[in-house]
Amino acid sequence: MLPKGLLHPDMLQHRNVFKKLTQKATDFGTKPYHLKELIQQPDRFSDFSLKTQNFFLDFSRQRIDQEVFEELILLAEETKACQSFSDMTTGKIVNTTEKRAALHTGARNFSDNPLKIGDLDVNSEINRVNREIKAFSSDVHQGKIKGSTGKAFTQAVVIGIGGSYLGCEFAFEALRQTMDPKIMIHFLPNVDIDNFNSVIKKIDPETCLWIVISKSYTTTETMANLAQAQLFLDTHGLSCKDHLVTVTAQKSPGDNPSNPVLAAFHMFDFIGGRFSVTSAVGGVPLSLAFGFDYFERFLKGCHAMDTHALSAPQSQNIPLVAALISIWNTFFLNYSAMAVIPYSSGLSKLPAHVQQLYMESLGKQTSSDGQFLTRPAGTIIFGEPGTNAQHSFFQLAHQGPAFPIEFIGIVNPAYDGESAKSKGVTNHQELWANMIAQSLGLAIGKEDKIPAKYFPGNRPSSLILIHDLTPESIGNLLSFYEARTVFEGFILGINSFDQFGVELGKVMATDIRKEIELKNQTPDHGFDHLEETKKFYLETLFQGSLE
Amino acid sequence: MLPKGLLHPDMLQHRNVFKKLTQKATDFGTKPYHLKELIQQPDRFSDFSLKTQNFFLDFSRQRIDQEVFEELILLAEETKACQSFSDMTTGKIVNTTEKRAALHTGARNFSDNPLKIGDLDVNSEINRVNREIKAFSSDVHQGKIKGSTGKAFTQAVVIGIGGSYLGCEFAFEALRQTMDPKIMIHFLPNVDIDNFNSVIKKIDPETCLWIVISKSYTTTETMANLAQAQLFLDTHGLSCKDHLVTVTAQKSPGDNPSNPVLAAFHMFDFIGGRFSVTSAVGGVPLSLAFGFDYFERFLKGCHAMDTHALSAPQSQNIPLVAALISIWNTFFLNYSAMAVIPYSSGLSKLPAHVQQLYMESLGKQTSSDGQFLTRPAGTIIFGEPGTNAQHSFFQLAHQGPAFPIEFIGIVNPAYDGESAKSKGVTNHQELWANMIAQSLGLAIGKEDKIPAKYFPGNRPSSLILIHDLTPESIGNLLSFYEARTVFEGFILGINSFDQFGVELGKVMATDIRKEIELKNQTPDHGFDHLEETKKFYLETLFQGSLE
Repeated sequence: MLPKGLLHPDMLQHRNVFKKLTQKATDFGTKPYHLKELIQQPDRFSDFSLKTQNFFLDFSRQRIDQEVFEELILLAEETKACQSFSDMTTGKIVNTTEKRAALHTGARNFSDNPLKIGDLDVNSEINRVNREIKAFSSDVHQGKIKGSTGKAFTQAVVIGIGGSYLGCEFAFEALRQTMDPKIMIHFLPNVDIDNFNSVIKKIDPETCLWIVISKSYTTTETMANLAQAQLFLDTHGLSCKDHLVTVTAQKSPGDNPSNPVLAAFHMFDFIGGRFSVTSAVGGVPLSLAFGFDYFERFLKGCHAMDTHALSAPQSQNIPLVAALISIWNTFFLNYSAMAVIPYSSGLSKLPAHVQQLYMESLGKQTSSDGQFLTRPAGTIIFGEPGTNAQHSFFQLAHQGPAFPIEFIGIVNPAYDGESAKSKGVTNHQELWANMIAQSLGLAIGKEDKIPAKYFPGNRPSSLILIHDLTPESIGNLLSFYEARTVFEGFILGINSFDQFGVELGKVMATDIRKEIELKNQTPDHGFDHLEETKKFYLETLFQGSLE
Repeated sequence: MLPKGLLHPDMLQHRNVFKKLTQKATDFGTKPYHLKELIQQPDRFSDFSLKTQNFFLDFSRQRIDQEVFEELILLAEETKACQSFSDMTTGKIVNTTEKRAALHTGARNFSDNPLKIGDLDVNSEINRVNREIKAFSSDVHQGKIKGSTGKAFTQAVVIGIGGSYLGCEFAFEALRQTMDPKIMIHFLPNVDIDNFNSVIKKIDPETCLWIVISKSYTTTETMANLAQAQLFLDTHGLSCKDHLVTVTAQKSPGDNPSNPVLAAFHMFDFIGGRFSVTSAVGGVPLSLAFGFDYFERFLKGCHAMDTHALSAPQSQNIPLVAALISIWNTFFLNYSAMAVIPYSSGLSKLPAHVQQLYMESLGKQTSSDGQFLTRPAGTIIFGEPGTNAQHSFFQLAHQGPAFPIEFIGIVNPAYDGESAKSKGVTNHQELWANMIAQSLGLAIGKEDKIPAKYFPGNRPSSLILIHDLTPESIGNLLSFYEARTVFEGFILGINSFDQFGVELGKVMATDIRKEIELKNQTPDHGFDHLEETKKFYLETLFQGSLE
């Protein structure tokens, strides 16, 4: 039987931990619990920070005390979060609606423990694909594999959207800080033809690889962009069999020998899109960009955090504690959004990746056993790099409606060239001075008789440190966010691995597409039979004008 | 006397319109007010959509009815929003805390009406700067102005942050869809040295201009990056007087003949950072990128919307109506965030620009006359382009906690080359099919006996259409968001033009910077006198390790 989570309808009235936390949340509305008081408590910083190897989480400026922390750990205990996490990594069916395992941790499993789903030997499948990626990327780098006109490849365009895009882009942007790409990667997620337009302006057709990523090989946007790519290759006298690579499920239309491509790499239904960066989805582009060895170091960084998440005691388990704090903030203190603010321009795509990972996994209304939750789960995630964010929306963060913030700092920047000092400090030191100041300032606030200059404080934040932007550190960070998300799902009692909420839009778009197709085929086709909204938009689209 | 806005403490109990809207918000929690019912009402679409020239706002899927709409218009009336807007455009002191006008509309004022602030002839100052920009950018394009080594300029790096960055980046990314840049623009906002690192990898020092944008010429991040740029130029044997351009206030340190630069363009204290895209802040980079004529067409697009905002009757005034709906959603229906989803990859930077514009302008706790508001103003703005967003966080949008969405569609894409069809439709048609489907699906929802497949609907959205990505249309859009923001500020009764909430962080960063500077000067300097949080972070920074 599935453990029942915090938001399961059966649990609300009966669970002591729920009542206790609700009571504590009321206490926290009172003055003695203001963060400026809490952070004065002896040993506050050491009690509420955790470290594993090169990863550090400081949650001492969250609105918690020892009692809340203990209750939260009890909540993890009662909802069997660690057991569920362990079940997940051994291939149990945790994606209950789709009857699938969720084995992203298996994509970077360097242990010798056999990992099976039914008859399928997961390790051997993963290793096979990785060997193929290694050989292929090496052959491309050495110029053994070339384009139709005999030129070596220098760029690649990744066609993929959502889970086949955002995580890979995040990792690419981060990793290129520490190594110049051998193959430059461009991304073509959006079905917008202007996305295609801006990509083809940047590439040389003869030296460009196209990587199409889609598990089913039926994703509408991806197939539409594939059609553009095929036309583009044709127009330039180039062929798919020399320029196109697929990352797709075995036996999908993209893995069909009657549609010859340069190479096809497999992805598996036991790894979901938003968790797939460490599978071939990230493996092919990142190995082409930086070499397979670099990608493998990234996998090792993920594995290190996976191991921590699996083995650390609950109260010292970094992603688990982060998940519990998120639950406390969302369901007890009632914050409705969280900002992710990396103080690193190399992590500029982290907020978008975490936004997808978190909101698509946890934005749910039903429990794992298919009942309506007592309230919808999930919260809004947004963010921009600091210090940019300070000059953009931190006015509201300090004096508008409050929201929790997760700061991410990098101990060592990638740049190691000559550097000027300004006001007596380096740029990196200035960056840190700001990061520390913001986290403290939000918590403490400032008294002032002039209302416009008064800072209420009591605004919670965590601060995460990673060592640098090496593949190991980026792997640590990626796995941390994956583990934090699934821990939160397990505690809430929801399925973090499905996404039925995206189906309605697809169905409705199909109906509208059919109308457009009819009009394309038969210019006389009118839209008078449609309700006025659809009619207006379709007429405007075909008219090409608002006049 | 200033009009008292919705959140002014004097107004809460006494205003009928407030009571009426509060009552209506309660009604809207009941079934007959579900959006799937509301949108069935006769003439719903035509009653709740507005058009001016090539700009269209459909708010028929907002949770309003005729009565709410009328009350909202009454609210605008009572708070004298249009009068305040008009006062703003004539140079009255609307930035009450800083005793300044807010004359961004004056930056694109093509009328002959004289515009004065005290003795200052605003039109003549703006025209002077624009003539200088036109001459300078033309000379650069014609190769009359060259770098130190005699080569023509091909790229520029913009050093500026917040208001000196985001709006300009938005406009640059949008406008480059319809014209290839003559001068490629790179942005260096972040004090992170890795931002500098990634920029210098992209440029050729001899053909690169550096544009430093800072009103005071003291912004910490900008000065730190200027120091890096100066060192970089020195290292390459190049000089600031040939490669560096400033956009700054008259007589700031960046406008000082004893620091010779290639050119200096003035900005004025009557235009605030986040409203400054149409001043020299955007004018210099955008004219270098696309030519002054293109920039001027952008100004004309802004002016057209300014004119509409100034002259349209309240119930037909597009930015005013959008502002009222935002207030209804935030303060009566209690939504805590709004997504901005452009269905155009060329508008990918629009959400970040609107996020800054809105959250820094409206994230306030005090009224224009300096009293605490009845509740903090402002809401969180976030977004990504569609269809990308559908594959990222729309799971939560459909089935998690609800938030309003503003969709933006482009009638005609920029790309006009050969294009393949997929499933019988072009990419642009597919994009529109999805945009229409999402907006309708969120409103209507879908019944299903299986909870995971049930869509509650009743999720409000607006849909904005602009004609295309030409400078005129982008100008329309920019001015729409500016006007919507300031209308909302006037109705709430707050000052949209100051940002005291960013001061605390600056002060605290200064204290921390001093500690770092001391340690840089005297390696023996320790941090034991600091409280444990600061001590830990500063020690970690200097140690360069988490071990």
